Amino acid sequence: MLGGAAALGLVLVQDSFGKVVQEAKPLFDVPKDPTKILGVPPGSLGTRSPFEQPQKIPSITSSRTPLQQLFGTITPSDLHFERNHGGVPLIDPEKYELVIHGMVKKPMRFTLQDLKRFPSFTRICFIECSGNFRTGKAELTPQEICGLTSQSEWTGVMLSTIFREVGVDPKATWFLAEGNDAAVMTRSIPIEKAYEDAMLVYAQNGEALRPEQGYPLRLLLPGWEGNTQIKWIRRIELADQPFMTREETSKYSENIAGGKIRQFSFLMDARSMITFPSYPLQIQKGWVEIRGIAWSGRGKITAVEVSTDEGKSWQTAALQEPVLSKAHTAFRLLWHWNGKPTVIMSRAIDESGYYQPSYKELVLARESKGGYHFNPITAWEIKNDGSVWLVNDRS
Amino acid sequence: MLGGAAALGLVLVQDSFGKVVQEAKPLFDVPKDPTKILGVPPGSLGTRSPFEQPQKIPSITSSRTPLQQLFGTITPSDLHFERNHGGVPLIDPEKYELVIHGMVKKPMRFTLQDLKRFPSFTRICFIECSGNFRTGKAELTPQEICGLTSQSEWTGVMLSTIFREVGVDPKATWFLAEGNDAAVMTRSIPIEKAYEDAMLVYAQNGEALRPEQGYPLRLLLPGWEGNTQIKWIRRIELADQPFMTREETSKYSENIAGGKIRQFSFLMDARSMITFPSYPLQIQKGWVEIRGIAWSGRGKITAVEVSTDEGKSWQTAALQEPVLSKAHTAFRLLWHWNGKPTVIMSRAIDESGYYQPSYKELVLARESKGGYHFNPITAWEIKNDGSVWLVNDRS
Repeated sequence: MLGGAAALGLVLVQDSFGKVVQEAKPLFDVPKDPTKILGVPPGSLGTRSPFEQPQKIPSITSSRTPLQQLFGTITPSDLHFERNHGGVPLIDPEKYELVIHGMVKKPMRFTLQDLKRFPSFTRICFIECSGNFRTGKAELTPQEICGLTSQSEWTGVMLSTIFREVGVDPKATWFLAEGNDAAVMTRSIPIEKAYEDAMLVYAQNGEALRPEQGYPLRLLLPGWEGNTQIKWIRRIELADQPFMTREETSKYSENIAGGKIRQFSFLMDARSMITFPSYPLQIQKGWVEIRGIAWSGRGKITAVEVSTDEGKSWQTAALQEPVLSKAHTAFRLLWHWNGKPTVIMSRAIDESGYYQPSYKELVLARESKGGYHFNPITAWEIKNDGSVWLVNDRS
Repeated sequence: MLGGAAALGLVLVQDSFGKVVQEAKPLFDVPKDPTKILGVPPGSLGTRSPFEQPQKIPSITSSRTPLQQLFGTITPSDLHFERNHGGVPLIDPEKYELVIHGMVKKPMRFTLQDLKRFPSFTRICFIECSGNFRTGKAELTPQEICGLTSQSEWTGVMLSTIFREVGVDPKATWFLAEGNDAAVMTRSIPIEKAYEDAMLVYAQNGEALRPEQGYPLRLLLPGWEGNTQIKWIRRIELADQPFMTREETSKYSENIAGGKIRQFSFLMDARSMITFPSYPLQIQKGWVEIRGIAWSGRGKITAVEVSTDEGKSWQTAALQEPVLSKAHTAFRLLWHWNGKPTVIMSRAIDESGYYQPSYKELVLARESKGGYHFNPITAWEIKNDGSVWLVNDRS
């Protein structure tokens, strides 16, 4: 497979797990002159070029988006990261039902068809797993470090519209969302989020929601941790307190200073990732466009600052318009590499004024070198030979 | 296959060509209770639900996007329409070259790797074939009527950046773009477009450009007719006059009043299409959200007006933000159908003040009932039983 390396004129080639392998030879015949042979006629579904076969990295419970092979801000639906706790269920949309009950005037059952008749809404935003961090060695790609974030154009109905329909009791303060998967995933959500921007989405990137993202319906909580955005959602229960489910007590909570543990930490803090250059690429002297993505659960990214001298000085990167709220935002900075070893890094700043912390600051604040909601500045060392290596403790 | 019909709670089901067929039974086992069986573990590539199998309609030279099955504004890359004149060539990106010569200071050859090193740019816009019109019977879907328009997020380099590199002669006024396919497709483009917003794009919807859209590189001319946006581009020649190629003399020109023929009609005029409800759906009495897309090659859509009484009165539809220039824009209008026969239609208005014409106005202006750049208001008749039929001559 020809990965990002080949795409940038470099001799290294990655396999689907991001490892450097020999340069692959294609297993198909490429015509010497394509103008002398009739091409493939139009078909009912397009395909990728055999030279381009990006893949996720699967484990037992997740698979990671190949950020270093992507361009722009949309994640192709079949490359959207997965994280599930009991596998992807197969659900018949004709038999699908969503039940809403608890502190409501009128408990109701909705079919998918019912939900699609309500006023629709479309927005582009990211979904990120709050456990989206890996470190520990220099040989890690962006996909391995933070490939549990992806972005789609989502379409569905505002949750507030459905809450009006069932008549939510003014005393209700939380709701439970429950999935129809083998894990029966459940999370408690403060009701304010329903009135801010929560959605029930049935479409992704122009077509029906993909099974790995909750087909036929998922909860979308823009900017909040992925785990709360219940996939294959089958039940919503309104109440005046949280439900204290397993995934918000024994899991999805994190250390903070003083030996305490933080619970209900829904918001995804601002983060950025340089996707080019990154491990395992090798760059050449001269002009390099440093490229990456930045995002924040708090709203819009207002700036991305890039350092090419190990944090001594910072330059403001260009942001690709349109900059959307709670969305992956592409940034870039032209840099002239003089061939000397250095460390490059980026930090995101969002409209709330939040600055993405360095690795050292975060370790100090959390008294831990990882855990949920761990969003440090990623630092890449560039060696004499142009090779690129992860050096998190240099940020 | 369960299409838009099933998705909206209707008994009709379409096959992949948009025809009404019997209700399909799935050929796979759906568990009665998905919480009692472990689901599919994470994989390296996601897939569609077996209940969702949208397809294009292929012919010898084109295949059409199933607009009535889509949501939002992004077209999934494998459903992007195709139009080619000699099939889709297979091109090795490592051997790819783009030659730029003619009225330039420095004729140059660029590899794909070279082009990716230049400053990059990303934008969302539609591409539409200028022959995107069909009529003649009531049994036509949006896919059949105007499925030769699709939208992607494109990434590449601005053509103006590359023109600076080769040093274009100030006396050059046109350039030729030539494709590396069996048709050796060539078109002449006024140089102003290169400095306005033309791009050479290598990525589509987050990943490498798809073969059907010109892999590894295509010309992108936002808002202009698809045919000019040369795919598999291999050569650009600068000159001080157009080249009068076959595709701009015997083809891709159209009738105008007075028996004349218009040439170099690059710009795609504003258009809109109601995708729901549309043939072959059947609606029920009560609230119906009329949904569709509108677009203009001139810039942003400023309004879409919808009539539910055969053009006697018009209401302003809601436009989905962000409204982007030269981009498919989703619109919607809540309508209470009283169960009586009527005709519904939509018209697009863009930031230049252009109003999408009615079918009758366009026939009068063109002295023809079709041809290139034929963008009439589409009218749908709704019968007593809720069935929906194309009635173009009612607009």
